[in-house]
Amino acid sequence: MKSTLLSRRDLDFLLYEWLRVDELTKRHRFAEHSRDTFDGVLDLSEELAEKYFAPHNKKSDANEPTFDGQHVTVIGEVKEAIAAFAQADLVGASMDESLGGAQLPVCVAQAGFAYVSAANVSTSGYLMLTVANANLIAKFGDAEQIETFVKPMLAGRFTGTMALSETQAGSSLADISTRAEPRADGTYRLFGSKMWISGAEHELNDNIVNLVLAKIPGGPAGTKGISLFIVPKYLVGADGSVGERNDVTVAGLNHKMGQRGLSNTVLNFGEGVHTPDGDAGAVGYLVGEPHRGLMYMFHMMNEARLAVGMGAVSLGYTGYLKSVEYARERTQGRVVKDPTTPQVPIVEHADVKRMLLAQKAYVEGGLALGLYCTKLVDLQRTAESAEEGQQVTDLLDILVPVAKSWPSQWCLEANSLAIQVHGGYGYTREYDVEQHYRDNRLNPIHEGTHGIQSLDLLGRKVTQRGGASLAELGKAVTATVEQAAAAGGEAAELAASLNASWQRVVEVTAAMYAVDDAAATLANSAIYLEAFGHVVMAWIWLEQFVVAGGQSGDFYDGKRQAARYFFHYELPRTAPQLDLLESLDRTTLEMRDGWF
Amino acid sequence: MKSTLLSRRDLDFLLYEWLRVDELTKRHRFAEHSRDTFDGVLDLSEELAEKYFAPHNKKSDANEPTFDGQHVTVIGEVKEAIAAFAQADLVGASMDESLGGAQLPVCVAQAGFAYVSAANVSTSGYLMLTVANANLIAKFGDAEQIETFVKPMLAGRFTGTMALSETQAGSSLADISTRAEPRADGTYRLFGSKMWISGAEHELNDNIVNLVLAKIPGGPAGTKGISLFIVPKYLVGADGSVGERNDVTVAGLNHKMGQRGLSNTVLNFGEGVHTPDGDAGAVGYLVGEPHRGLMYMFHMMNEARLAVGMGAVSLGYTGYLKSVEYARERTQGRVVKDPTTPQVPIVEHADVKRMLLAQKAYVEGGLALGLYCTKLVDLQRTAESAEEGQQVTDLLDILVPVAKSWPSQWCLEANSLAIQVHGGYGYTREYDVEQHYRDNRLNPIHEGTHGIQSLDLLGRKVTQRGGASLAELGKAVTATVEQAAAAGGEAAELAASLNASWQRVVEVTAAMYAVDDAAATLANSAIYLEAFGHVVMAWIWLEQFVVAGGQSGDFYDGKRQAARYFFHYELPRTAPQLDLLESLDRTTLEMRDGWF
Repeated sequence: MKSTLLSRRDLDFLLYEWLRVDELTKRHRFAEHSRDTFDGVLDLSEELAEKYFAPHNKKSDANEPTFDGQHVTVIGEVKEAIAAFAQADLVGASMDESLGGAQLPVCVAQAGFAYVSAANVSTSGYLMLTVANANLIAKFGDAEQIETFVKPMLAGRFTGTMALSETQAGSSLADISTRAEPRADGTYRLFGSKMWISGAEHELNDNIVNLVLAKIPGGPAGTKGISLFIVPKYLVGADGSVGERNDVTVAGLNHKMGQRGLSNTVLNFGEGVHTPDGDAGAVGYLVGEPHRGLMYMFHMMNEARLAVGMGAVSLGYTGYLKSVEYARERTQGRVVKDPTTPQVPIVEHADVKRMLLAQKAYVEGGLALGLYCTKLVDLQRTAESAEEGQQVTDLLDILVPVAKSWPSQWCLEANSLAIQVHGGYGYTREYDVEQHYRDNRLNPIHEGTHGIQSLDLLGRKVTQRGGASLAELGKAVTATVEQAAAAGGEAAELAASLNASWQRVVEVTAAMYAVDDAAATLANSAIYLEAFGHVVMAWIWLEQFVVAGGQSGDFYDGKRQAARYFFHYELPRTAPQLDLLESLDRTTLEMRDGWF
Repeated sequence: MKSTLLSRRDLDFLLYEWLRVDELTKRHRFAEHSRDTFDGVLDLSEELAEKYFAPHNKKSDANEPTFDGQHVTVIGEVKEAIAAFAQADLVGASMDESLGGAQLPVCVAQAGFAYVSAANVSTSGYLMLTVANANLIAKFGDAEQIETFVKPMLAGRFTGTMALSETQAGSSLADISTRAEPRADGTYRLFGSKMWISGAEHELNDNIVNLVLAKIPGGPAGTKGISLFIVPKYLVGADGSVGERNDVTVAGLNHKMGQRGLSNTVLNFGEGVHTPDGDAGAVGYLVGEPHRGLMYMFHMMNEARLAVGMGAVSLGYTGYLKSVEYARERTQGRVVKDPTTPQVPIVEHADVKRMLLAQKAYVEGGLALGLYCTKLVDLQRTAESAEEGQQVTDLLDILVPVAKSWPSQWCLEANSLAIQVHGGYGYTREYDVEQHYRDNRLNPIHEGTHGIQSLDLLGRKVTQRGGASLAELGKAVTATVEQAAAAGGEAAELAASLNASWQRVVEVTAAMYAVDDAAATLANSAIYLEAFGHVVMAWIWLEQFVVAGGQSGDFYDGKRQAARYFFHYELPRTAPQLDLLESLDRTTLEMRDGWF
């Protein structure tokens, strides 16, 4: 049976025919690898996803974690899946060999992980957080912290969490109030409460490594006074053994619309429930230097945001494949109106084709963008000159808000279309697609909301380093335009269309900054993000169109048709958006609270 | 506390300042009424909604109906709510006095009912179906059927269902296979199975009146061979007493993403579980004449589709009000970046204003359209000449697919924005908005999917009676344009914009029909529906802008700002859609199954 998680044919096209990731093996970091090892990771990921993750996806949705006041209980299949993933050495897939990692390119690791999140985004969440946590400590922690916490995470003995938000400080991290008091032995004691902490309490393995943002009393106000701490659930002995309980306790669970299998908690520190060595507060270990916590977090944020985007893609992708399968099997109505003829598969109806083609454009486009960006992470890590490093960073920086937000919006829309293709059945829990839709609705919210991403793009990225990021993207778009123009024919037509849209983006961006009124410039940032995102995706689709070239076969025909769909149906949406932005419309800005 | 179900101020504006529904009392049918009785219905509906419907909305979502193989159990609060509604004589709110109804205008009854569905769309579903059922039998049934079934429904003793779909026949009703065999005594015996039947099994009151589409053997193929039957759960004696169990049995429940409190069943007829008088089959009573069942259904379809649209509006509306309330209370971040200053309510952030303003434009616009259309139903019922009747019918016919689909799409989008305003909290079941979003996702599917509505609009309504419906809508739009143009200033600017968009719709419609290729004309019908809908809504917003005029006060300022938002941010979306339609783009049409 063909997998309905992801299309391996598409992954092969994107990774090898388009991105040529096998060429990464020429770089020192990946010299031990080959296309064979990359393929092996994809094979293994798909196998694990089908065997350990997909089967309990519905079960963990229907049986969300429970909390008895002390312990959070998660269904047993989650534990098995996490163990299988760790045993396959995939937690450290992209990490350094010196730490026990496989030192694979991030883009290959993420492609493999997409199978896992397509199969079960909730269970994959425990792993995604663990990987992010391990990466952060590996980068900024000291040798002892790496030995004590990172290695057991890679081995699957520990899992990790990221504890940033508080009830009064979600998007506004400057306002966190958790405090970390220094102790004479160099450790800290933490007091406070964190909100939205996924995976912070369970019995899935030996220990939980919480990475916590807190303020050391006396530090600067706002974000400049935030430090980063490791606060494990159980203290760890010098021999690596898990010992005394730390004063980290779950106060309650949040009950979500989707991603129900991933526990989400209110987490308290220093409540006095457990008091290691009699002193108050939860024992914490400072990572790196004081007051640099948010900087460390930001350093990892690109990867975290790309991972969220890829998660959104994988949910969109599996919903797409399931709705294609359904549309081929389900018969309903006729193309020619004669009630004596048999009903036809709904895939023959024009409006169903439209809904499938839109999904294809969103999910294959989203996957392409995600892999493109994760490959940039690999190029950044292995840059062969400072210049290359800077260019890659400039390009990556400006693409990240798009790679996070665009799939969160449009692959969610894909899931909605997957429901619509299924008709009434799609609205029931007897089919898969309604859960994908609920699960995916989180993605425009966490790891920086849509609005936050739009301010990051328009308020920071397009102007940073004197517009270097925008210029770098412009160079990449122009290169594609020139290549497609040279190919002539339809490719040249699409190139002209993309070029016009891109020039318009540049022109409108300049117009928005031509006024000396930051509020007006940023008032419609969310619309800017959407228009910008669609133009970026037209570029990504033109890239694919060019690579498909004149090659024959259903796969290439499908790629070309999806590119046409994107250019004819989607890209034109940006014209009125860009006109609105250029006009610096003040309708929302001038709206007053009392008028609602 | 201000209600977060609907805005009474807005209802008063729409019903009295704009639609002047008090003038309906000049018509004979409504002569017994006055604004006082209308207001009384609104007051009462709000009171019942707050007291009996809202309190168990979350509870019935978390405790959906259960089925033990024989009986479906629904939480007790549903029964109380239905009884309270019936005791208030609201089931027959718009029905004839001669039947025990209150003979209120449909628009007033629907405005009142919007409170109930905003409070609890699942529980309101039992009532909506009962009203639709009662209306249908009252219109086409005989005196005995009205006495036996309609009156007990109005009294709250019986509830009703609509049993149309089958597993193999959802959108394609021509393919139903339930059969009705005639018996010598004039009754029928039904055999078959129906799918998606809401409210078909419960113990909420004495009896359930199923209205069932079935085919009498030997009749014509397709939709022309469909007849309509009353098939009660319990047979009813000549004295009105409920007697023997009919052979109607629930085979199972469907488990939905939302609207979980409303039982949804697979319903079997003639399975031999119960055999009244020893004969096989479920006892059914033919409504009207044989083979005219679908025509009867279509006759009621306008009202049913308007009701679905109003249901979508009410969910959007309550989500909007709740997110406004949240945005006023929730503090997060700052407008001026100084971490030593207190955080501000998020309603002060431009992007939050945008999300609230968009919701306002969608839900107030949707409510306005719904009430406009239901008032047309009243004018149709009380037309004082054949000409008036025809004009109203022409206008109503073309607006119905919009009034059903537009709120189903955009008030769902409003619910998504309400979640987004709430941030992470909005994604949890601790708040209301995630349920509204799940509940509302049904509306683009049932009572004719989005795709079916689009074929109804483009394939039937715009050309029917030689384009008379389209012309009638054109007259209405033009009248508004002329009125606004005469007012000058900003109204005239908006009028010019609406006029240009409307002319473009007319021109593009003609171009789409200028080719002799039905497949090409209809290929992008869904996009036509969306563009057409947005232009209709611009007209509805211009109407409101004109009525608000230069009146001062927050309410009118808000109306004007929402109209501006719609014209600046929403109407321009239609330009690329109409260009695409005019080009008769064949991308979706030419897509092949193998290419997905």
